[in-house]
Amino acid sequence: MPAGELYTVTTVRGATKTETPGGRSKQKEYLLIQVKNTWNCVESRQEIPTTWKEDQVIVSQAKMWETVTESGVSWTVKTPISFCYKVTETQNLLDPNNMTLLYGHVSDPQEVEVYQKKIQKRFVVMDTNVEKIYGSKVRKSWLSRQQKKNKSMELVLTILEEIHKFGIDRRTEPVIAIGGVEPHTSEFRQPFCLMWMQVWVQKNGVNFCNCKNKLGSYTPPAATFLDRSFIRTIPRRQISNGLGEILKMALMKHKGLFELLESHGKYLLDTKFQSRNGLASHGDAALTATRLAIQTMLEELAPNLWEDDLERLVDYGHVISPELEMKVLPALMHGEAVNIDMAFMTYVSSESGLLTAEEKTRTVECMRTLELPVWHKDCTLHLIKTALGERLKHSGGKLRLPLPTGLGTAEIFNDVDEETMKRAFEKWTEDCQTLST
Amino acid sequence: MPAGELYTVTTVRGATKTETPGGRSKQKEYLLIQVKNTWNCVESRQEIPTTWKEDQVIVSQAKMWETVTESGVSWTVKTPISFCYKVTETQNLLDPNNMTLLYGHVSDPQEVEVYQKKIQKRFVVMDTNVEKIYGSKVRKSWLSRQQKKNKSMELVLTILEEIHKFGIDRRTEPVIAIGGVEPHTSEFRQPFCLMWMQVWVQKNGVNFCNCKNKLGSYTPPAATFLDRSFIRTIPRRQISNGLGEILKMALMKHKGLFELLESHGKYLLDTKFQSRNGLASHGDAALTATRLAIQTMLEELAPNLWEDDLERLVDYGHVISPELEMKVLPALMHGEAVNIDMAFMTYVSSESGLLTAEEKTRTVECMRTLELPVWHKDCTLHLIKTALGERLKHSGGKLRLPLPTGLGTAEIFNDVDEETMKRAFEKWTEDCQTLST
Repeated sequence: MPAGELYTVTTVRGATKTETPGGRSKQKEYLLIQVKNTWNCVESRQEIPTTWKEDQVIVSQAKMWETVTESGVSWTVKTPISFCYKVTETQNLLDPNNMTLLYGHVSDPQEVEVYQKKIQKRFVVMDTNVEKIYGSKVRKSWLSRQQKKNKSMELVLTILEEIHKFGIDRRTEPVIAIGGVEPHTSEFRQPFCLMWMQVWVQKNGVNFCNCKNKLGSYTPPAATFLDRSFIRTIPRRQISNGLGEILKMALMKHKGLFELLESHGKYLLDTKFQSRNGLASHGDAALTATRLAIQTMLEELAPNLWEDDLERLVDYGHVISPELEMKVLPALMHGEAVNIDMAFMTYVSSESGLLTAEEKTRTVECMRTLELPVWHKDCTLHLIKTALGERLKHSGGKLRLPLPTGLGTAEIFNDVDEETMKRAFEKWTEDCQTLST
Repeated sequence: MPAGELYTVTTVRGATKTETPGGRSKQKEYLLIQVKNTWNCVESRQEIPTTWKEDQVIVSQAKMWETVTESGVSWTVKTPISFCYKVTETQNLLDPNNMTLLYGHVSDPQEVEVYQKKIQKRFVVMDTNVEKIYGSKVRKSWLSRQQKKNKSMELVLTILEEIHKFGIDRRTEPVIAIGGVEPHTSEFRQPFCLMWMQVWVQKNGVNFCNCKNKLGSYTPPAATFLDRSFIRTIPRRQISNGLGEILKMALMKHKGLFELLESHGKYLLDTKFQSRNGLASHGDAALTATRLAIQTMLEELAPNLWEDDLERLVDYGHVISPELEMKVLPALMHGEAVNIDMAFMTYVSSESGLLTAEEKTRTVECMRTLELPVWHKDCTLHLIKTALGERLKHSGGKLRLPLPTGLGTAEIFNDVDEETMKRAFEKWTEDCQTLST
């Protein structure tokens, strides 16, 4: 410790011991209980007056600690907040008779009945492309709309202003966002970069100061509605782009999903995920791929919603790609940059002895089936080193590199030596340079 | 239900029953467990392979439900996030030897040692007034500063831009806000509108579209440092303004605090809370008042951080005052408008038979001791009715009016008839009109 006094250090992790330069301080832990609309601190349940009936007392999940030190009191509060969100498959979402858009975010059927007693209004946000295709359909049942095309802070403020003018009750009148598939602004936090509906506040980034997703809200949308028929209108390259993110989940944690993409990837691209009545030999590949993509992504996000745990499999493909995107945008779509990153990392895994030659080949072949680029001339060794340096900086001083350890299994590694990186880069370039288009 | 299909309704409250038009759907509940960096859904702990050692398995607090309906699958995720924040009394905060500003937000002493191994940088935000008084002191140890004077969205963006240019690691390099006492933008969510330090993201509103605190973040600052010596430089009216919010907590839930303000309020104003070595007859009134104000406020906020519970005692004084402020700003300070609201509500309580005449008189007398206005010509019965209408709209259709039921006790009421309001208004005007300055 440098000279000077360290006044108060309060800890709530594990033991509640506290030390200050002046000797041990006293710490008390409190429960918070509510009786007759008033919250009170009590040291234990025994303190609750027996005159209060049990059904009048509410015990909060929040806790409070009070520490007395030489320089005064320090209060520490720990409050748990529960986020609840849904991802729901649906059909004919824009059919005026489909109630999903209006009430799909409501959990309790009885609540729906309460809603139906008054006129419902919703604020709907769409981008220009979505408006062109679906605008007239949406307007059949809805009155308000927005047409803008970038994801800058000014746009967000404009939308907020419009919402303010429109006037909504933030508790009962969710904002509906349709789409969100503009190239280079795809919501990469989401399991599926194709097309779906998002209700309520989105967990989404806003570009700021020329940085991708620099600002953003951290609350997930209350409900997301996925109607695969929307994918029908998406250009093939955009679908391929979305498949890049699905492939990421497959490579990290689901061999079945990988094999499905391997065998049916081309079919999914050809049929644009409209395979419900598709060829028998492909089964319901689209349905299965979508569900597995969502499930694996939710599995990884749910326990780590605010990314407190820095060791994330979902970071696969997102270590080198930010640097690459900064350099080559708009030539590459986000999922394409991610795939180039994953292709390189496949070679790192292979050179580290984590992947067999066959597993490596199958991975790269699958990427090509999905029509994703596997190499890029601007992804130089220098760029890779810069990107890894940035990773170290923003990942608490450790590399925390997700690497495949087989098809559909992965682990986080901190030590990958420079020699291996260099060898991987050379082999990657040798094998894949000619495959790039 | 109206015609049309209600596709999926998933409930996570209480029982997990779900009904769809097509009959009962199946729902499965999953635990989320992590093994070797990978999260997996399992239906129960029994499903965890016995080959995995117990210390390799992490069980998340998050849960996931899968519901199969006619139109597909619906996933529901519930993720708890814990907010941890501190309020710490300190002394000589700006002394270069005081480590509180640099490390006071860190909970673990060992972590402080890690911090000290590298150069520390912090982004500091102050308003113009604070800069004038404390700027040179702060610059002795710090390098960067901001000088602006309003609380608009543009200012927020300017500050964000500066933070971006400065470059901080959002996990380890907290932003420090000094002050925040500009009239009409005081942080009314906080226990004490005088002066203190706030570290990390503030739970604070930003004015937008000419509305007070329309936008804002909902994460509390990681740490708040309170050094009472700062109050020394605050104008008397501003201290009185802050006492309005302290009085609110006293009236709602702490008779001791009320009696302290009653007996020592003038002394607190005269000495500007610098009473550590004050007159023996006043004991340490400043210390006790500050602590009780913080503790009672934390008690009410901790269990209801995001205000999911609409029945809040802290809303006292904040039902009529928003409407009044809109009309008379900048003539009234926030705490003054709050007090006018509380003075009127004291009469409502009295006319409803909740307060005795003596309790009513003592309350109004105490307000006058604190040099707070108890009546205002623009607070007409018409304005009060408009404000109560607004309250109904934004409070889920119920009035949820906190009203004192004695000195330092209160409850929430939904039914206050118009006749009582009118009578209260008349008596209030009769008694208090002449007391207004």
